[in-house]
Parts: sequence; C-alpha cells; structure tokens
Amino acid sequence: MLVCLGIDPGLARVGYGAVARTEMGLFPVCYGCIETFPDMTFTQRLMKIYSDVQGKISVIRPDFVSIERLFFGRNTTTAEYVWQARGVIMLLTAQNNLPVTELTPNNIKRTVCGSGKAGKHEIQRRVRDILTLDEIPRPDDTADALAAAVAGLSLYEGG
Amino acid sequence: MLVCLGIDPGLARVGYGAVARTEMGLFPVCYGCIETFPDMTFTQRLMKIYSDVQGKISVIRPDFVSIERLFFGRNTTTAEYVWQARGVIMLLTAQNNLPVTELTPNNIKRTVCGSGKAGKHEIQRRVRDILTLDEIPRPDDTADALAAAVAGLSLYEGG
Repeated sequence: MLVCLGIDPGLARVGYGAVARTEMGLFPVCYGCIETFPDMTFTQRLMKIYSDVQGKISVIRPDFVSIERLFFGRNTTTAEYVWQARGVIMLLTAQNNLPVTELTPNNIKRTVCGSGKAGKHEIQRRVRDILTLDEIPRPDDTADALAAAVAGLSLYEGG
Repeated sequence: MLVCLGIDPGLARVGYGAVARTEMGLFPVCYGCIETFPDMTFTQRLMKIYSDVQGKISVIRPDFVSIERLFFGRNTTTAEYVWQARGVIMLLTAQNNLPVTELTPNNIKRTVCGSGKAGKHEIQRRVRDILTLDEIPRPDDTADALAAAVAGLSLYEGG
C-alpha cells in the first residue's frame, strides 16, 4: 500500500487529503481542511499550520506528499502570505523525511481528467468518482488536496 | 539592555545581525550569514535555514526580531523561493514567542539615514559608523540584517 498526502496550501485554509493505492485501486484515507483565523497574528497562523499539518502527518504517516505549485497573477499581497505558509509546509516534509511531488495545475488536470483544459468542477467530480465518495468534499481546498493526492499517486506509478 | 535580531531573508543567504541598545548606545552583538547551497534540495535548504536560525535565536536570545518586508518586481521565480524561506523564519519567531517588527525598505532607509532616498551603500556606511565597526560587514545580506536591527531598535523606542 502506498499512501500519498495531497496538500492545497494557503494561509486561511490548508486543504489536506490522504489517498491510499492498493491492488484494489485508490481509497480515501482521510481528508479535511485546517483553518486559521483573521483574529490571529500572521505568525500565530503559521504556527497553527505547522502544528496541525505535523499532527496530520504523524497520524497518516504518508509515503510521500503531493503539493500544488502556485501561480499568482497581480494579486501579490495574497501571494506573499500563501507562499510563506507553503514554506512552512515544505519545511515539514523535510523534517519528516518525506519525498515531495510538486505538480502544476496543468499536471493535475491532465492526470486526473486527461485534459489540461478541464475546469475546477470537472476535476472535483472526477476525484469524487475515482474515490467513490458520495459527494464532492467541501471546501474546495479539501477537494483540491485530494486531486493533488490522486495525481501524485498516478505519476508516482509512472503514468 | 534591549537586543534586536535583524534578519535579511533569502534562500541561498540569510543575513542576521543582533544589536544591543544600552544607555551607552548601540552595540553589535554578533552578525553573519547563514548559507544554503544549490546541491541541496529546496526542502533541505528550508530545513537548514530553520535549524541554523533557531540556533542563532537560542544563543542570542533577542527581545524581538526586525525583518525586512520583501518587494519583488517581475522576477517571480526567485520571489516564490525567498517568500517560502521567509515563512520558515516567521514561523520561528512565533515558536520562540518573539515579537516581530516588519519594516519596508523605505522605513529602514529613513530610520537609518534620515531619507527614504538613501542608496544601499549609504545605509551600509551609516550602519558601520553607528556600530563603530572597522568596515562594512560582508556579504550585503549581513549588512542589511544589521540595518534592519538598527532601524528596529530606533522604531521600538518611538523614533
């Protein structure tokens, strides 16, 4: 069994989704969303992300991590906070000695849906079906994290 | 005595400079530059920054940290790595329960030189003189970290 922890990084919400690959196929292990709040200072938010993501890694004990590469347009104020939060998560992968797969949004679309042009909702439905979930997990961050895990597992197997 | 640890964040080089304020004026406590190398993976570099900066904090035991806010133009590939490294440093301030002063380059210029138009070399000479150093510390990252510490201490005192 191979377990991939997918992560959708952010400051207010960090989506996580662990998926296991067995001979029977792909199965969701656990998924959810870590939240931080505007009444916390920026560094308190980073510390909560650090301890909560470490908590998930300790429980899930994944074989590797799959994390989306970020692309920002002109909205650089948001970008700087999200990048800093991502740095904390990347640090954790090294501290836990976990290999990391960094995927572009296009990698994920192509791997999950077969096309780099797939829309967000199409990916989410596809992930729901692959993992035989009753519904698309909410919020989007959770669904995106599961998509990163599914894509990470596919690419890990060499296709 | 009030000790400020100034930090100039980066991925390849993190400048640090601790300055103490006493009744006699400002004194350099220690300064230098933490380096990471291109033959390391990105996450190994983050882990080295984390452990080395923590090491400096443990030895110096500053009262607070002063760190420059980053501004990037179009060079976003560099920016994303530097932001992630900065996230690791900001995490450390929270884990060590240290207040943080975030200064813009203009804040630092105005506070150290009296003008927001001061050039890089002018700031460095001014820092050298304020701290009565024999020469401007090298590399620039170290000098910039000391400038952040000097500016942080000035602003901490209310001007």
